[in-house]
Amino acid sequence: MEWKIVGVIAAISTTSGFIPQLIRGIRTKRLEDVSPIMYMLMIFGFIMWLFYGMHLRDVIIIGANVVALTFSSFILILRHKYLKQKNKVY
Amino acid sequence: MEWKIVGVIAAISTTSGFIPQLIRGIRTKRLEDVSPIMYMLMIFGFIMWLFYGMHLRDVIIIGANVVALTFSSFILILRHKYLKQKNKVY
Repeated sequence: MEWKIVGVIAAISTTSGFIPQLIRGIRTKRLEDVSPIMYMLMIFGFIMWLFYGMHLRDVIIIGANVVALTFSSFILILRHKYLKQKNKVY
Repeated sequence: MEWKIVGVIAAISTTSGFIPQLIRGIRTKRLEDVSPIMYMLMIFGFIMWLFYGMHLRDVIIIGANVVALTFSSFILILRHKYLKQKNKVY
């Protein structure tokens, strides 16, 4: 039971990690320094982890990767949007 | 056996995801847009995943999180270093 708690804390931390990045991006309207290749690799990786979690039937791994997948996709989309807006202005 | 491959691909993707971010940071000497709170949460989370992986005795989860922990720590340290250098110049 205690191990489930460690897993849940792990899942919440690495998943919610993308929230401050998303908030920072929305606030500053800048995500230029953020690597798009990193997020592409991450999104692909989260989908693979999702399958692996399904195989292990581990709800924590599945849940963590669904949420991480959602947030990291948003960051990549916003980065593209902000760079497009910037290029229009200058 | 095929599932091990899915796990390894997942681990390599989410782990190596930090490499392009590290390279981008070193190349541009800019990591300002990268959220420090994100990396602090991630580092904490990877340590928790490490313990969870040890509990599951899953070498893939353990290995992935050791590497992710190393790279994300480097990104956070470099961000601090570059911001300090920038503040000296201006």
